[in-house]
Amino acid sequence: MLSSRHIIDMQDLTPDDITLILDTADSFKEVNQRRIKKLPTLRGRTIVNLFLEPSTRTRTSFEIAAKRLSADGINFSASTSATVKGESLADTAETLSAMACDLVIVRHKYAGSPRLLARHMDAHIINGGDGMHQHPTQALLDLYTMRERLGHLEGLTVGIVGDIAHSRVAGSLVPALRMVGATPVLVGPPTLMPARCDVLGAESVGTLDEVIGDLDVAYMLRIQMERAEGMPFPSLREYSRIWGMNEARLAAMKPSGIVMHPGPMNRGVEISSAVADSDRAVVLDQVNAGVAVRMAAMYLLLGGDESGVAA
Amino acid sequence: MLSSRHIIDMQDLTPDDITLILDTADSFKEVNQRRIKKLPTLRGRTIVNLFLEPSTRTRTSFEIAAKRLSADGINFSASTSATVKGESLADTAETLSAMACDLVIVRHKYAGSPRLLARHMDAHIINGGDGMHQHPTQALLDLYTMRERLGHLEGLTVGIVGDIAHSRVAGSLVPALRMVGATPVLVGPPTLMPARCDVLGAESVGTLDEVIGDLDVAYMLRIQMERAEGMPFPSLREYSRIWGMNEARLAAMKPSGIVMHPGPMNRGVEISSAVADSDRAVVLDQVNAGVAVRMAAMYLLLGGDESGVAA
Amino acid sequence: MLSSRHIIDMQDLTPDDITLILDTADSFKEVNQRRIKKLPTLRGRTIVNLFLEPSTRTRTSFEIAAKRLSADGINFSASTSATVKGESLADTAETLSAMACDLVIVRHKYAGSPRLLARHMDAHIINGGDGMHQHPTQALLDLYTMRERLGHLEGLTVGIVGDIAHSRVAGSLVPALRMVGATPVLVGPPTLMPARCDVLGAESVGTLDEVIGDLDVAYMLRIQMERAEGMPFPSLREYSRIWGMNEARLAAMKPSGIVMHPGPMNRGVEISSAVADSDRAVVLDQVNAGVAVRMAAMYLLLGGDESGVAA
Repeated sequence: MLSSRHIIDMQDLTPDDITLILDTADSFKEVNQRRIKKLPTLRGRTIVNLFLEPSTRTRTSFEIAAKRLSADGINFSASTSATVKGESLADTAETLSAMACDLVIVRHKYAGSPRLLARHMDAHIINGGDGMHQHPTQALLDLYTMRERLGHLEGLTVGIVGDIAHSRVAGSLVPALRMVGATPVLVGPPTLMPARCDVLGAESVGTLDEVIGDLDVAYMLRIQMERAEGMPFPSLREYSRIWGMNEARLAAMKPSGIVMHPGPMNRGVEISSAVADSDRAVVLDQVNAGVAVRMAAMYLLLGGDESGVAA
Repeated sequence: MLSSRHIIDMQDLTPDDITLILDTADSFKEVNQRRIKKLPTLRGRTIVNLFLEPSTRTRTSFEIAAKRLSADGINFSASTSATVKGESLADTAETLSAMACDLVIVRHKYAGSPRLLARHMDAHIINGGDGMHQHPTQALLDLYTMRERLGHLEGLTVGIVGDIAHSRVAGSLVPALRMVGATPVLVGPPTLMPARCDVLGAESVGTLDEVIGDLDVAYMLRIQMERAEGMPFPSLREYSRIWGMNEARLAAMKPSGIVMHPGPMNRGVEISSAVADSDRAVVLDQVNAGVAVRMAAMYLLLGGDESGVAA
Repeated sequence: MLSSRHIIDMQDLTPDDITLILDTADSFKEVNQRRIKKLPTLRGRTIVNLFLEPSTRTRTSFEIAAKRLSADGINFSASTSATVKGESLADTAETLSAMACDLVIVRHKYAGSPRLLARHMDAHIINGGDGMHQHPTQALLDLYTMRERLGHLEGLTVGIVGDIAHSRVAGSLVPALRMVGATPVLVGPPTLMPARCDVLGAESVGTLDEVIGDLDVAYMLRIQMERAEGMPFPSLREYSRIWGMNEARLAAMKPSGIVMHPGPMNRGVEISSAVADSDRAVVLDQVNAGVAVRMAAMYLLLGGDESGVAA
């Protein structure tokens, strides 16, 4: 069983928790390959998708995970939310709690919102992405994919490339890698680097070429094109030239090295189409792992209720 | 079984119907406290949530109720509706009827829309709120909560405070209270009082302090902040001073008196945060009762089909 | 079993496929008349409603069909889609495929999108309407309704009236009718006629009165009022006068003739209210058939997996 009631930050989990989640995901992955992808495990449990920021792939991944475990899923999205009537997030939390929800998946533009929810609910919380803070199930599915493709996690060198400072994906992946004994290396323009690189315990380098030969994994972050006007680098072409993954750089990686991306990809910006479609890019493995890892997280949080997890 | 095929107005129900719904909700409330909150009762029945006005808590409450009874629920919301293509509500009703829907929950900005639907469908109808007219399942969950907390309904004095004239909550609660032998007292600025107070058979008073000592229940209506610019009272501060529930007024109520609110609350306007969070405010009990009462309403309407309810 | 993995164009189907779908729909129609409208057939199969254009009735019809077959349905709508983040449809397809979806129903404003999806997914595809191209399940439910009401399809003369050039309904119905041995006649203003009438193999006439006496079916297309400003005909009144179905024209049809419409209807434009509500208009039969036909299409596509349909 997990040591925490919630999965909000990677720091909620121990290295043993991570191993338990990845191992449990292995069984669920097998279920997802069956013709009848359905287990009765969470029948009669109520899971709310509280997505207060637009999302498709993450919400869909959680929704499919919940349905395959036979849970009752409720979508509660920003556009129709009582938040437009000025209700506080704390009141929303207490309302969902009063409806006897068992688990809430929350995505919110403000860092810390999932923790606030947890204080006002009896339900378990999974952070589906909060502001520029964390997105822990993304990190878990990334670890799952690395372990699956490379056989182990300990000792891997993982370059995380791009806008580290504003990325909740990096915010979870960096501590996750350190917990499993891998080494994150932050790569990107200095304007997109966190001030606290040292605090994070991660080395940082300015260009991808400096480090490419050492990487087991090149993890390409998404450039948020929708915010591109205010981007603190000269141009997308310049970005792509210095920090983009292309065939030349792929050739420069270790022969066993893989390329990852949390999706959706900007082909031609942070990753070239040729690399995205090569068999060393594992982007679709990540998506596939996402359903299994989220099934594992839901199962372990909700199954843990009756087996003595500290409340 | 219920005496009516639909729950559109409180006037569709008899006092015996109300008792039957509240008693049935008692059993469903127990189900909602279980780990596995699921009954096979409405398996294979199709329930449509036709919410043509934005809503979260009411829609979610109905959706959870339907899922816990194993019904197939369909969300049909305003934003994507064929109504944007100019289809009449009558044609929408006939379309849903042709798809063999069993029960439609309808929320609509125009009073009378649920009755119109009922004329064009074979399905049962529950009014989820129509314009400034009625919202009967809110009144039923309110009665449930009063009975649960105060032990009985007959003889209670219930102050309904705020914008009575434009409130569908009040529109259902006033007749509901009279049907069970309780006494509604309408409290609010004269500009927010219905012209037809006498017709309603309810006494009205101008300030909360005039009546606070007599109240078993202070039912605080929501000030619709989104319409606040055109509000016919001097200011929110003034409103709060004269008609808001605060600790001083809570102390002036009967010692057993409770405070209710249909949610979402405007803390600091119609109710102070201290009162909202006190154990004499039963707002979350109301939310909790909502799921059970809606399960009861769905169950009784749909179960009634085969046991001789008049069509 | 069907001869195709997908239902994208009518040309994917053979006449035998059409007969198989209509016959299978017969059994499902009976299920839809039961109190418990539910079969376990597609339990554990994941069906995605990828509706990237607003829709209510078609999406709802597919959603009800999926639920009555016990499939797990996921709604993936335009407003919240990753397409706003610039993801290509091919990447969306591969993402859904990686989540192990079994069947995707797609509606898209661009003709050809469903075929593009099919190239990037392992899942089966049903075209729920693509631009001005095709909408094959609409044609199938139309055939079902004609066969049910008139007893046979071969030899019927079907007038399709209105904006043929921009109608995906006509785009599927014309080849569908020809495949079953019926004769489509295209009726409408020359400005709304396709250039390729002869290629379609359908006769065209300029006014409804020229052909009304020969029709077994008058199929009235919807005038897209939301685009009406740019309509290439003098006025709605003029349109209605020359191409609208009214009581006089109904009387001029064969005594057994029926009137069809894909909905939602513009009463008073392409069809008068008196005709719409007469028992010779079968609009609601079409809606009713829609659920059964879609259940049949889903069942045959997904059931076909294990019985040797060519991949």
